[in-house]
Amino acid sequence: MKIIRSREELQAALAVLPRPLGFVPTMGYFHEGHLSLMRASRRENRSTVVSLYVNPLQFGPQEDLARYPRDAERDRLLAEREGVDLLFTPDDEEMYPSVGRIPGSLQRTRVQVEGLSSIWEGASRPGHFEGVATVVVKLFHLVQPDTAYFGQKDYQQALVIQTLVRDLALPVTIRVLPTVREADGLALSSRNAYLSPQERQAAPRLYQSLRLGEELIRQGERDPQAVIWQMESFLSKEPLCRLDYVTVVAPETLLVPAAIRLPVALLGAAWFGKARLIDNLIVR
Amino acid sequence: MKIIRSREELQAALAVLPRPLGFVPTMGYFHEGHLSLMRASRRENRSTVVSLYVNPLQFGPQEDLARYPRDAERDRLLAEREGVDLLFTPDDEEMYPSVGRIPGSLQRTRVQVEGLSSIWEGASRPGHFEGVATVVVKLFHLVQPDTAYFGQKDYQQALVIQTLVRDLALPVTIRVLPTVREADGLALSSRNAYLSPQERQAAPRLYQSLRLGEELIRQGERDPQAVIWQMESFLSKEPLCRLDYVTVVAPETLLVPAAIRLPVALLGAAWFGKARLIDNLIVR
Repeated sequence: MKIIRSREELQAALAVLPRPLGFVPTMGYFHEGHLSLMRASRRENRSTVVSLYVNPLQFGPQEDLARYPRDAERDRLLAEREGVDLLFTPDDEEMYPSVGRIPGSLQRTRVQVEGLSSIWEGASRPGHFEGVATVVVKLFHLVQPDTAYFGQKDYQQALVIQTLVRDLALPVTIRVLPTVREADGLALSSRNAYLSPQERQAAPRLYQSLRLGEELIRQGERDPQAVIWQMESFLSKEPLCRLDYVTVVAPETLLVPAAIRLPVALLGAAWFGKARLIDNLIVR
Repeated sequence: MKIIRSREELQAALAVLPRPLGFVPTMGYFHEGHLSLMRASRRENRSTVVSLYVNPLQFGPQEDLARYPRDAERDRLLAEREGVDLLFTPDDEEMYPSVGRIPGSLQRTRVQVEGLSSIWEGASRPGHFEGVATVVVKLFHLVQPDTAYFGQKDYQQALVIQTLVRDLALPVTIRVLPTVREADGLALSSRNAYLSPQERQAAPRLYQSLRLGEELIRQGERDPQAVIWQMESFLSKEPLCRLDYVTVVAPETLLVPAAIRLPVALLGAAWFGKARLIDNLIVR
């Protein structure tokens, strides 16, 4: 596996990689979720590129950019073990060469996906999806993959990316793979590293609330507010959980429907201590 | 020359075109300015693609989208005569397939270039450069050219595009070619078709005002406000001219400097009857 830090090296290395090319963009601190994407890419392509870049453009000023968990050496070993061909780990100067030249801004150009970017995660994290969309488009231009792999755990992110790929006619196929979970249901996330032992015990409650919502819908509940209320009430019983939102939405628009008609997406976000966790579940 | 209306035909035709590929994105109603870009592309590439699409996303609700001049048959003949290989003329449904599904919007995804998009032309035409940037990125994804050609007449547009190409790491080289002018100095523009005979006679005054500004700078004037005031005063003497703005700016930031230091860009926009004309001049 080649480790690559500059765009120039990247272009040289890509030129000799057999096609088709799969790409897994990540912020590192790999868990089984990331590894499952690498494996899918390996299965479906002749070459696999993984990027590891903690993108400052998608973090708010009050967020966890500085303490986001990192372990470059472990990530390198795990990617190598999965048979990844290139690991692209640029620094900020390589990704945003204008940094410092434009006061208060990494670069002038932004990609926005209206509507989808400003609700739920976008409402709680202003600017987040603009940062994600911009860096993903840039990485697609640098890597020029045939297929790119994302986890369903970040459901809204995957939807934003699918939308911009279609809207901008980007020549890449997007594959969204199932969320990988711990035995007790907790969705794998690099941010689980922030959880204390007690918080870790409490954290599966987010997924349980989504399962409860699913159960209510399967039993015939058609009022989204009733489902939301029950999920909220269930989460409020866990003192270590501070709810951000839990909701029932149409899977493509992310809007709460007047009445539930399958499929719907159940989305949730909650704080457990310093860890802001998200999860989702599609009811078909 | 192949005339192509759908993305699918375009991909099939591009697959068999020899590289390198030059690309000239246009809104049609070709004049010598467009033809000079096609000739440059022919000289510098093995194949040339021209797009002809009047992009609704870059027109404001009060602007001239509906009456923008069109002549598909003449454009076809001119492009053919220049040796263009493919003429891509999509309709709105082909460029914005979501149209009608998102109320009040052609698509959700937008490309923005902060700062450069909101001053001068951007201030007079809110949303204009967002529409330009979005469609140009989309056309680049569809055509995947090695080099794309733009006219210097739209100086701010060229700067917006050069900035987004660099910021988003788009794998395309941008070439900006000199403004083509009539014998009396008027910059060629499809919108010159709106001019009455009297307005046509008055219209070169915009360029003359920029030449006057250049002359003042060459004579040693270093105060931008003094230059602007003289240019404004010169334009105000033409009763058929309604000034929008005329200014002296740094060529990269488009900001008015405290004192003039070469190079600077002189930019102007003015109405002559129903025609809103723009022009510029770089003083080196």
